[in-house]
Amino acid sequence: MKIAIYGYGNLGRGVEYAAAQNPDIQLFGVFTRRDPQTVKTAFEDTKVYSALDISDYKNDIDVLIICGGSATDLPEMTPALAAEFNVIDSFDTHADIPKHFAAVDSAAKRGGHIAVISVGWDPGMFSLNRLYANAILPNGKDYTFWGKGVSQGHSDAIRRIEGVADARQYTCPVQSALDSVRNGENPELTTREKHTRLCYVVAKEGTDKARIENEIKTMPKYFSDYDTTVNFITQEELDRDHKGIPHGGFVIRTGRTGENSENSHVIEYSLKLDSNPEFTASVLVAFARAAYRMNSRGETGCKTAFDIAPVDLSAKSREEIIAEML
Amino acid sequence: MKIAIYGYGNLGRGVEYAAAQNPDIQLFGVFTRRDPQTVKTAFEDTKVYSALDISDYKNDIDVLIICGGSATDLPEMTPALAAEFNVIDSFDTHADIPKHFAAVDSAAKRGGHIAVISVGWDPGMFSLNRLYANAILPNGKDYTFWGKGVSQGHSDAIRRIEGVADARQYTCPVQSALDSVRNGENPELTTREKHTRLCYVVAKEGTDKARIENEIKTMPKYFSDYDTTVNFITQEELDRDHKGIPHGGFVIRTGRTGENSENSHVIEYSLKLDSNPEFTASVLVAFARAAYRMNSRGETGCKTAFDIAPVDLSAKSREEIIAEML
Repeated sequence: MKIAIYGYGNLGRGVEYAAAQNPDIQLFGVFTRRDPQTVKTAFEDTKVYSALDISDYKNDIDVLIICGGSATDLPEMTPALAAEFNVIDSFDTHADIPKHFAAVDSAAKRGGHIAVISVGWDPGMFSLNRLYANAILPNGKDYTFWGKGVSQGHSDAIRRIEGVADARQYTCPVQSALDSVRNGENPELTTREKHTRLCYVVAKEGTDKARIENEIKTMPKYFSDYDTTVNFITQEELDRDHKGIPHGGFVIRTGRTGENSENSHVIEYSLKLDSNPEFTASVLVAFARAAYRMNSRGETGCKTAFDIAPVDLSAKSREEIIAEML
Repeated sequence: MKIAIYGYGNLGRGVEYAAAQNPDIQLFGVFTRRDPQTVKTAFEDTKVYSALDISDYKNDIDVLIICGGSATDLPEMTPALAAEFNVIDSFDTHADIPKHFAAVDSAAKRGGHIAVISVGWDPGMFSLNRLYANAILPNGKDYTFWGKGVSQGHSDAIRRIEGVADARQYTCPVQSALDSVRNGENPELTTREKHTRLCYVVAKEGTDKARIENEIKTMPKYFSDYDTTVNFITQEELDRDHKGIPHGGFVIRTGRTGENSENSHVIEYSLKLDSNPEFTASVLVAFARAAYRMNSRGETGCKTAFDIAPVDLSAKSREEIIAEML
């Protein structure tokens, strides 16, 4: 099957790497809104096309992986492209998913295509694990912890403060809260009790660091509800020690069974990722395989990870999967 | 939807509890090969029928949950019952699954029913997590650890030794091996390096304990490949401290992505269960819901957890699931 990448940033590059790991998947190329000449792909032989010409290739691409941002790109791109291609995106603005779903569903059905939205790890693999665990243990409680990992949005928020040259923010789960959940104590946790925020900030010369620290710690929505630690470091240190984009987290459901709910169970799914975009890209590629297969069977419309039978994600045959993994 | 339980031991009783937690599921009753008068169910109002009369009820039951043993019961029961009912079983003899699948598939197709086999946590939820993780990270390595939990088979093996009055055996994962896997060290682990075996044994009066201990530790297949600890205790202590049937385990896949495989990722799924049969039963009930829905859409034949779209497992609507869990 042939996939193409629409939008080439960290996520698009991750898809380029992931495609190379899957022998049944061929990368048709990258589509960019920039001048194709200026885009340097990870592999030399990856072809780069202008996004303006995408419609010319609708018979050459089995699934288009849309690597745009959730804020402004995907709400436009995914419905538009779903009319002409099988598509996948990683739309992650939770509150707007139902609206996005409706727009994409109607376009995909009109075009006779499959569109899988909100694929990645959260939403995506974390969502799947919430669903499985809820179906198994209806009498229980869900917990999601994120980190330790880089939050791009929070790093950007710090960078917008006057006097800040650069910054990197890590979201960290609180170990004692995690332990309490795992012990089946069913704690009620506030925002502050679940995560802390750890900031590495490069201040411009001559700037009042105390003022920056105060502005960060009191920033509503982003930091004021959290215990936040601010460390000032040099640009050199930031580039040396914090250039990665790690992330991860934990989805835990605890529940009870038995005549008098006397038995406690803990279901936990966790990810520890060196590269958030590369892992997300790897999930996208597996779901692209499923999208292609579902559409080949005549299915159309918008789907989420919930709608996809796991067997469709694997490059292996049903017989191999049963023999090796069941 | 109406389910029925076929075979009433620990697992059947677990299904009885699980059904009570799911308002959309009604328990039609229990079918037993024993004299129905002698079966005491968990709830007073659960009806008990003779297994001999099962065919009389084929229009009253949407899904039959077969709670028999994998060694001799299920290879006979599941194909026979799949001809007349939608069925689910927890067949767990890994090597024989392809053969069981074929027999059940042909019976289920003949009868126009859905049969879901090998449902539970391993095979079952662990299998699903192996599949998802393999599809996402094709360049990686799988690890499964079991425990800490009671192995019925190993406990039985000890009980068969002369001079043993009672016994309970726990399978325990080796913490240092788990840590090495989680650190992405990709260790090659022998049987001995992955699990230890912990035995609590009640010896009959006047028996040579050293001889029993030696017979356990040198027992081929069951114990000789493991570091085994044998503790002699009284029947009272065994009944007081070891009457539960806890289990659990860990499925971990580590893999690499990036231009030169420079980024490492760890996907981990773990279960910590107070009651192995009650948790397995809870999984069976969720998959019974899916079986009913799939058959209502006209699907037939043998399925595994791999073939089932997660959305079909949940009592909630697709819209609720998207809003609450995606």
